[in-house]
Amino acid sequence: MNDLRKPAEREPEASAPVHDLTTLITALRASAAERDRAGGHAAREKQWIADAGLLTLAVPCEFGGVGARWRDIYQTIRAIATVDSALAHLLGFQCLQVVSVDVWGRDEQRSRYLGGTVDQRWWWGNAVNPLDTRLVATAMAGGGYRLDGAKGFCSGTRGSQMMTVSAHDPLANQPVFGVVPTARAGITVHDDWDPIGQRQTDSGSVSFDAVRLEPHEVLHRSEAPRATLRTLVSQLVLTNLFVGIAQGALDEARRYVTQYGRPWITSGVTRAADDPYQLQRFGEMRLKAIGAQALADRAADALDGAWQKGFALDAQERAQVALATSEAKVLAHRAALDVSEALFDACGARATGAPHALDRFWRNARVHTLHDPLDYRIRDIGRYALEGTLPDVSLYT
Amino acid sequence: MNDLRKPAEREPEASAPVHDLTTLITALRASAAERDRAGGHAAREKQWIADAGLLTLAVPCEFGGVGARWRDIYQTIRAIATVDSALAHLLGFQCLQVVSVDVWGRDEQRSRYLGGTVDQRWWWGNAVNPLDTRLVATAMAGGGYRLDGAKGFCSGTRGSQMMTVSAHDPLANQPVFGVVPTARAGITVHDDWDPIGQRQTDSGSVSFDAVRLEPHEVLHRSEAPRATLRTLVSQLVLTNLFVGIAQGALDEARRYVTQYGRPWITSGVTRAADDPYQLQRFGEMRLKAIGAQALADRAADALDGAWQKGFALDAQERAQVALATSEAKVLAHRAALDVSEALFDACGARATGAPHALDRFWRNARVHTLHDPLDYRIRDIGRYALEGTLPDVSLYT
Amino acid sequence: MNDLRKPAEREPEASAPVHDLTTLITALRASAAERDRAGGHAAREKQWIADAGLLTLAVPCEFGGVGARWRDIYQTIRAIATVDSALAHLLGFQCLQVVSVDVWGRDEQRSRYLGGTVDQRWWWGNAVNPLDTRLVATAMAGGGYRLDGAKGFCSGTRGSQMMTVSAHDPLANQPVFGVVPTARAGITVHDDWDPIGQRQTDSGSVSFDAVRLEPHEVLHRSEAPRATLRTLVSQLVLTNLFVGIAQGALDEARRYVTQYGRPWITSGVTRAADDPYQLQRFGEMRLKAIGAQALADRAADALDGAWQKGFALDAQERAQVALATSEAKVLAHRAALDVSEALFDACGARATGAPHALDRFWRNARVHTLHDPLDYRIRDIGRYALEGTLPDVSLYT
Amino acid sequence: MNDLRKPAEREPEASAPVHDLTTLITALRASAAERDRAGGHAAREKQWIADAGLLTLAVPCEFGGVGARWRDIYQTIRAIATVDSALAHLLGFQCLQVVSVDVWGRDEQRSRYLGGTVDQRWWWGNAVNPLDTRLVATAMAGGGYRLDGAKGFCSGTRGSQMMTVSAHDPLANQPVFGVVPTARAGITVHDDWDPIGQRQTDSGSVSFDAVRLEPHEVLHRSEAPRATLRTLVSQLVLTNLFVGIAQGALDEARRYVTQYGRPWITSGVTRAADDPYQLQRFGEMRLKAIGAQALADRAADALDGAWQKGFALDAQERAQVALATSEAKVLAHRAALDVSEALFDACGARATGAPHALDRFWRNARVHTLHDPLDYRIRDIGRYALEGTLPDVSLYT
Repeated sequence: MNDLRKPAEREPEASAPVHDLTTLITALRASAAERDRAGGHAAREKQWIADAGLLTLAVPCEFGGVGARWRDIYQTIRAIATVDSALAHLLGFQCLQVVSVDVWGRDEQRSRYLGGTVDQRWWWGNAVNPLDTRLVATAMAGGGYRLDGAKGFCSGTRGSQMMTVSAHDPLANQPVFGVVPTARAGITVHDDWDPIGQRQTDSGSVSFDAVRLEPHEVLHRSEAPRATLRTLVSQLVLTNLFVGIAQGALDEARRYVTQYGRPWITSGVTRAADDPYQLQRFGEMRLKAIGAQALADRAADALDGAWQKGFALDAQERAQVALATSEAKVLAHRAALDVSEALFDACGARATGAPHALDRFWRNARVHTLHDPLDYRIRDIGRYALEGTLPDVSLYT
Repeated sequence: MNDLRKPAEREPEASAPVHDLTTLITALRASAAERDRAGGHAAREKQWIADAGLLTLAVPCEFGGVGARWRDIYQTIRAIATVDSALAHLLGFQCLQVVSVDVWGRDEQRSRYLGGTVDQRWWWGNAVNPLDTRLVATAMAGGGYRLDGAKGFCSGTRGSQMMTVSAHDPLANQPVFGVVPTARAGITVHDDWDPIGQRQTDSGSVSFDAVRLEPHEVLHRSEAPRATLRTLVSQLVLTNLFVGIAQGALDEARRYVTQYGRPWITSGVTRAADDPYQLQRFGEMRLKAIGAQALADRAADALDGAWQKGFALDAQERAQVALATSEAKVLAHRAALDVSEALFDACGARATGAPHALDRFWRNARVHTLHDPLDYRIRDIGRYALEGTLPDVSLYT
Repeated sequence: MNDLRKPAEREPEASAPVHDLTTLITALRASAAERDRAGGHAAREKQWIADAGLLTLAVPCEFGGVGARWRDIYQTIRAIATVDSALAHLLGFQCLQVVSVDVWGRDEQRSRYLGGTVDQRWWWGNAVNPLDTRLVATAMAGGGYRLDGAKGFCSGTRGSQMMTVSAHDPLANQPVFGVVPTARAGITVHDDWDPIGQRQTDSGSVSFDAVRLEPHEVLHRSEAPRATLRTLVSQLVLTNLFVGIAQGALDEARRYVTQYGRPWITSGVTRAADDPYQLQRFGEMRLKAIGAQALADRAADALDGAWQKGFALDAQERAQVALATSEAKVLAHRAALDVSEALFDACGARATGAPHALDRFWRNARVHTLHDPLDYRIRDIGRYALEGTLPDVSLYT
Repeated sequence: MNDLRKPAEREPEASAPVHDLTTLITALRASAAERDRAGGHAAREKQWIADAGLLTLAVPCEFGGVGARWRDIYQTIRAIATVDSALAHLLGFQCLQVVSVDVWGRDEQRSRYLGGTVDQRWWWGNAVNPLDTRLVATAMAGGGYRLDGAKGFCSGTRGSQMMTVSAHDPLANQPVFGVVPTARAGITVHDDWDPIGQRQTDSGSVSFDAVRLEPHEVLHRSEAPRATLRTLVSQLVLTNLFVGIAQGALDEARRYVTQYGRPWITSGVTRAADDPYQLQRFGEMRLKAIGAQALADRAADALDGAWQKGFALDAQERAQVALATSEAKVLAHRAALDVSEALFDACGARATGAPHALDRFWRNARVHTLHDPLDYRIRDIGRYALEGTLPDVSLYT
């Protein structure tokens, strides 16, 4: 129960980056406010993540990767998200692309791309946003496709070496998936990502001008329950980012109040830490954070259980993981927003100076909690609660 | 992850009571509304619980008891609380008195009372309400005490064979604890329990008129961390009652809507189960229930871990269990109230007929959530979140 | 701004009932808990209301009635609801039947029934529940109808002298409205109202066996905007009952804590009234109550404005009142439930004794807030907020 | 009931600024996002406000001002805050400084400064933040003071012609108040205001180096109830900014969804405006906004009533306005934060582009809601609800 550590034990001093997670987190935190304001590409920090050996977390051991359990992967993502949810997102999506190849790739493809990730330390990007249908695949004589068009929200593509891509083949009226090197001729990664939060996720658009997707690069999207776990891997990345944001906002509030807090003039107490309403606020913030954390851990365990079943996994077992994932995501979504807003009630007016950028927790949470509406996720949960109907496989569940 | 069972799987038919938990629950549910209205003592139903072998759940194996893990004990209490939180409370307090003897008794006392519980199938009551200071202990020549006065909120004493008792010795200015048979001369168990909820917990007052507490019946209240786990055992009984109430209210709502639900006239749907707001409501109800459940399970695991350390348990480890317990109790408290109120939004006006007594979930929750104010529990959590200070040992933490 | 009176000014002593509102309220409060437990018909208390001159509040001055403004009528209903929301409901529905005759009656009918209400001090009941379609009207030769069947939720009919009635004429496929004396041959008022709250609203069922509705008793339901204000009169009765319940629960909490409140053992204060969390709780309770009150007053003012326009009122003006009514009802609904639940957090465990019946506030609120689902009312408000579309005339808006 | 206008009627087209409020608001909205990002001083926009004749809203008619009622002044501030809460704050504080002179000035001072405001169209700044005690007043021979030190949070001072100032005279151990031209020798207005929201309120620090405060410039802070209304004028400025932010966020959400909204893929509807959860969301947003609005209007009416009593106002009447003000401020505070967060749930992921700066509503609300903690305001309200004790006069109440 690692959340029961005393807060004071959580903050080692930073030193020269970065060969362990603690050092990485300290280093990321040191520049997080500044990088939030600047936006753009965090090349140095992405290198730190690579140096810490995190790029192969989700690569199975057989290919030389860490082959970690999902619970551990998500703990890592969450820990990074406490200080920098944009960089944590990049790591999460690295794992997601690795999984895409793992579940959709033929053995030869898995070997090439997963092994390559280990050997070459590739960062992976993507151009697979399912709601953006502008990218067209035209079958080439001899196999493979020519890709033309664009995709938005291509997280991680800037600065990546490899990327997954999805397109639509209008003649066959079917989707096409594949892997291409980011440097392939005809691919342009645009520097057009300028959101109010999650500013360094490199989620700009990518355009494709007669880009070749070679036959051996085409993945075959499986509908097997195990393959569709990929969507849940993705949703739990988001969930754990939210949990990390909530925990991080609480951590910052604690640090700030401990250092700068003054009792309110009519409070009747001499230490800010004795203010009854301040204590209540921290209590409520923690309750939100750990409630979300508990459901996120429960969902990660469910995913690990399902993952270990491999292709023996059946649809109902998969759907139970989907339900647990949705449940965790709702609580995490709310915790991230609520705690990052309450951070300011805890810290007071002087914490609103722009250089602190303490609003980045709320802005990061706000941007990232909009991938899909909570409404329909809660509807799914309600449908289960009322009729026992488990969620269907969909783009988001 | 037992909460992922399909709802439809939860409802076996009742048959002749009662040698297994499922049958017990079905039987209790069948008369719960009627017994709620009548109040009073549930002799028959207590017998069912005894018949189901649940009286020795917390008695260690060495004395012939079940020696169950706390997680399992609480699952049982919670399951019963889904249909009858008053009877579940009686079972929980049975376990609590057993634990009191276990942690405060000398070996000879443990053998006598815990072995006796197995052999004689004793129900245990109590007269230990710490906020009621009216019971006076006068030391007798030759050891032991004479008890005079009264105690309120003596849950489970009516219909019990044995009881724990606490009193105050004004000469020595110290508390006195002990065990007495409920039938001992001078003890009067009053039939004066008439609350708005939890109506069959037998929590009336008990008066003592020159009652002898023999030397061998005096327990020695230990301050060892392991012994103070007793308070947390008690708090987690309450917590799991609340979780059970929340789950039970959700179950009843589901049954009612499934059977009687009609779509609202302007909803535009033909089945109540397709109403978007009804689905949302069930989703929110479930989220509250499972959030509370997850933290209750986490706390039970923490308690089991601490329990297994025996007297090697240190104060900080104990305090971590106390924190986890408080955290779970807050969420469970809220879930019980919220879900039992929302039950009616789900079911509609016709569900308010008094014979259904569907308000018993809210009334039970409301009565039982008032043992101690949530406020100070949240303050404790906040103190930890802000300063890393773990909760002190107290009457309620 | 009458809510700014000091609480202490609100509680005059009861004396012999009842010729003024204050005395009436005091008298009703004295027996409210007992009558809640007993249920049934409050003949004595209804007589007090009549004695206080309240039966003609809504009867226009031209017929000898009080002809009060809606704002004043609702203040009266609300004030009574602070101590007894069932009796307040009866008064509210008295006004509603009076309005039904006023807006649907021909001049001769208005004169007979409104004048009769003044002269004969009639209590009015109703059998017009629109969701209950069991009552059939068969046209009689020579005009008028024969009524056969039944209606449920006939508030106020027991103990009434006159009643409004609605039925369905299957041959003409149209609704039929009218007025009949409750004592008319063939009408049976059943004593079958046994709900968990609002226990003395006399809302049982009424059966009709070949009951004559004479030609001069037939009302003609107008669709004119002014006539459809009747529905809003009804909705604001409910709204103000909720406001009254919230205010009443707050009043009871204040009285109880003032009289019995003890500081919590770890609060560090010596007076319950200095507990920071208790103060916060009362603050939040008040905020809910006055927020609801403010919107209820705003809606009443809107209704008064529309009412004064008479038949010149147009549909859009009417719809604006409907919107304001829905807005008030949502806040009042929530305030009633929330404050009546928080009452117990304020008062603590000893307030749960059944004889106090302090749960009647919640039970009354819970029963009465289920007439129609909040969901669709909020949808209407949202439709206005998003598209500027005002609510349609319907059974509930 | 101006909030019942159809939303569509609220948006006239902008034309050449600015001789009426509607044009002013349209013009401010057009550049609000861009100015939020840039921060700094809005000279042009302040000129528009002056051109619209708003600088003398609070100047009594006897001095040639508008002499508007508070309700109207706050409506104006609120309307501007729907599009630009920073500029609205400047206008509000203009009124506040005018009031300071009005209630603390001798007749001659009122004539000079209030008349001057009319004749010279002065913008007023301030250096009166009571929690910043760095500014020292040294009595000069012959009267008046020399001012040395600094003040923070000096809203409106940059770009102002006149300012109010408060300092501490350590020899006499008393506060000193006065008026000085902003251009006076020794005053330096720093360009150091860089917060996360309310970025153009010109609330940087001001330093004073041997600044002369002439005898005729010294104000005499009265403790008369009427004079202490000044604090409530200030608190209602903030309150109405919050109401305006809530309303503005709702307006922007409506515009965005109307223009860009697409139904969610699993919603089953073809228009975003028919999504049941979207309608619910807009309903809830509106309910928060109008609830806050209703209490803000109620408090403004209370202030107007008190204001009209002049120096006949007694302490209890004043305290009732303080209570109503606190009540309104709590609801407005919450409405501003909640609606500005929900704006994004309404609009979805594409609304998070930084150029839209739609997060400015939340950031503006978040910065501005931290003047004083809600906690103690709710405590005050609770104290009244529980014991009938009205709030004391203080820096914030």
